[in-house]
Amino acid sequence: MPHYSVDEPVYALATPFAPSAIAVIRASGDGVLSLLSPLFSGRLEKARTNTAVHGFISDRTGRRIDEVVVIKYEKGHGYTSEEAFEIMCHGSLPVIRSISLALESVGIREAEKGEFTYRAFMHGRMDLTEAEAVEEIVRSRSGQASSDALSRLTGSIRNEADAIRSSLLDILASLEVQLDYGEDEIPEEWVFPHEEIERIITRLELIASTYASSRLYSSGAAVVLAGRTNAGKSSLYNAILKENRAIVSDIEGTTRDYIEAECVIGGVPVRLFDTAGLRDTDESVEKEGINRTRKLMDEADLVVYVLDGAEAVPDNVGDALLVRSKRDITGESGDLSFSSVTGEGLGAVLEAIAARLTEGRASGDVPRIDSERQRNCLMEAASALRDAEASVSSGEDVVAMYLQAALSSLSALTGEVTADDVLDRLFSSFCLGK
Amino acid sequence: MPHYSVDEPVYALATPFAPSAIAVIRASGDGVLSLLSPLFSGRLEKARTNTAVHGFISDRTGRRIDEVVVIKYEKGHGYTSEEAFEIMCHGSLPVIRSISLALESVGIREAEKGEFTYRAFMHGRMDLTEAEAVEEIVRSRSGQASSDALSRLTGSIRNEADAIRSSLLDILASLEVQLDYGEDEIPEEWVFPHEEIERIITRLELIASTYASSRLYSSGAAVVLAGRTNAGKSSLYNAILKENRAIVSDIEGTTRDYIEAECVIGGVPVRLFDTAGLRDTDESVEKEGINRTRKLMDEADLVVYVLDGAEAVPDNVGDALLVRSKRDITGESGDLSFSSVTGEGLGAVLEAIAARLTEGRASGDVPRIDSERQRNCLMEAASALRDAEASVSSGEDVVAMYLQAALSSLSALTGEVTADDVLDRLFSSFCLGK
Repeated sequence: MPHYSVDEPVYALATPFAPSAIAVIRASGDGVLSLLSPLFSGRLEKARTNTAVHGFISDRTGRRIDEVVVIKYEKGHGYTSEEAFEIMCHGSLPVIRSISLALESVGIREAEKGEFTYRAFMHGRMDLTEAEAVEEIVRSRSGQASSDALSRLTGSIRNEADAIRSSLLDILASLEVQLDYGEDEIPEEWVFPHEEIERIITRLELIASTYASSRLYSSGAAVVLAGRTNAGKSSLYNAILKENRAIVSDIEGTTRDYIEAECVIGGVPVRLFDTAGLRDTDESVEKEGINRTRKLMDEADLVVYVLDGAEAVPDNVGDALLVRSKRDITGESGDLSFSSVTGEGLGAVLEAIAARLTEGRASGDVPRIDSERQRNCLMEAASALRDAEASVSSGEDVVAMYLQAALSSLSALTGEVTADDVLDRLFSSFCLGK
Repeated sequence: MPHYSVDEPVYALATPFAPSAIAVIRASGDGVLSLLSPLFSGRLEKARTNTAVHGFISDRTGRRIDEVVVIKYEKGHGYTSEEAFEIMCHGSLPVIRSISLALESVGIREAEKGEFTYRAFMHGRMDLTEAEAVEEIVRSRSGQASSDALSRLTGSIRNEADAIRSSLLDILASLEVQLDYGEDEIPEEWVFPHEEIERIITRLELIASTYASSRLYSSGAAVVLAGRTNAGKSSLYNAILKENRAIVSDIEGTTRDYIEAECVIGGVPVRLFDTAGLRDTDESVEKEGINRTRKLMDEADLVVYVLDGAEAVPDNVGDALLVRSKRDITGESGDLSFSSVTGEGLGAVLEAIAARLTEGRASGDVPRIDSERQRNCLMEAASALRDAEASVSSGEDVVAMYLQAALSSLSALTGEVTADDVLDRLFSSFCLGK
């Protein structure tokens, strides 16, 4: 695992290494602008901060590499708060390689993953929840996930933690007034603020509980179409994909027992599986296929069981969402009956899938988290507060200890007190150039 | 094929559509900055041109999409010379999609491929050879190719064409003085400037001839390692790749008869093939493999024939480059004998391969082209000048006609006179965002 520092100038390619119109190479660190100077024909020194300067990048021998725009950031103005620049060059692989080598030749080393954000964090430009949000935005696969992450990036968790910490500090302050007096001289008896602590615990647990649904929005849900052979699964599969196909094309399953594609339903990124039809069989290969389908159904976030027209509901469908196919033939217009031919009822089926995927998702003004680390900090703080409640009879110094423990969990949440190895692990999971 | 215009504001993603630290979305066209205004929290109006402004992008309903930096370009300052901006956002797929939709919602349409460069060309910011160079830089696969393209981007072909055109215009002017007089009143006989025309023809043909080797640098060369079974082909293959592996990893051949990888040798991007050993056999599968190897050798840009140590040179090696393996055993230190074990002689083998690939490549101050269109324009101009030479006896008006033809071929080269459909075809082969 890399160990991060803020002492050296670093650079990284911030866009994918693939041919494209533009690539961005960013660099940050003390003195980075004067290191670039001999490689760049534009007049960087005279430019103000945050200015795009046109010119040519050359290697150390003076051989021109590309015509570029360099954006200059003086200390305190860019992403890391350090002196920095961004080179916008042609998205050409040899150009990117040559510029990288040229930067290394003047003493700018390649950044570790997440090192720019690490620096922004170390310079106080963001707290740890905001830093995590940067990577969460990049990795997000639905608008809901990126929008939740943006809210974290702009401090929704930090603000919440600050408010709770401030309440706890008030409580602790009044408690410590008691501790400062001897047992005999206490002016009036201190009363444990049960109601406020309960309110805080509820809030902490509510925020922690958003983790499950955030995972769904960021990592996606597995939705399996099941049902008897010829029930209309494949037609439904195609109809859903036609309207909702999003990120990638068909992925063939590792076996031919099911096929898989990605789409977005109701804002949730979904891996949609079309499975082998379920039926009793003695044929061993088909049996194996059906076993795989059952395994897939067990692991799915949602099973959509497609009933063949007027087919009776079988026993073993568990909590699957039941939908009825062939509405054009049966004429049935029940809530979740649909026709892949006419398209009737499909909208309602999609809404029902989305509703089932997002049910229980906290709404309103609850900031949502998408990090197990954050969930653990919140749960630790809540648990310390429960311990404080339970130890009122053990004396005020024990209560104070638990309140301190809750406070330090909240400090770990925002990164005020965090061990180096935790930071190293956290930032090394970032993508290059962030 | 798209038809281009400069009348509408357009936008495009200029970086690959893949998760990454930063993505760049660019837009260009009259009024594009005020169209962006309601979507962007930063103070664009007050900013000077070429300034990076920090803020949030929202959709039309005010929902925040991302924290971004917008670079503002007033008319005359950016890539297209039009009013323009570049959004540097997080490289998140949903963020990119949402920003694209937001831009469309305020009336900025998605650009066609190459439309930004088309606009730069139409506004006179570059000539057609420079516009082509933009795409050539992006697609280049070796430093030589990108550096040649950069030289074209900075006008090496345009300057050459301008100089030649100027000479031809001088000749034509003195010729037209003759034509203005009646046959009887000619002050002194006009002499066809054979020497100068020959010089120009030679130069045009020299520039045109660089096309072949430029293709090699941009598209790469196929180099096939051949030789008898166990001659040391695979060891050489691995030794070369170890030192020169560049762009991608091993590509398994469509059959197991050969393997293929990409590397760069002496600046030339190379697809290097390791083949099945050649030997006489009656076994039909192996025979088929050897047939495929022979076919590959026929199509290769260079065959490197690996001789097994002291093996005698066989008859049928054609113009293959002969190299001798197992120098560590044979002790032979001839020019192209090498050892994959000790590494001795490998450098010389690589240099010999590079020399064979690049031999005949024009050097010095010849601007190099990498476009069939440009080659055709140059050859047409040269051919028109030959026709002019051949028609001196047919009268000055015929000579003038051919000189005019040469001039218009040169105008087509730089795009001063080019039919719309030629432009449409040319720019539509560009990548998106250029």
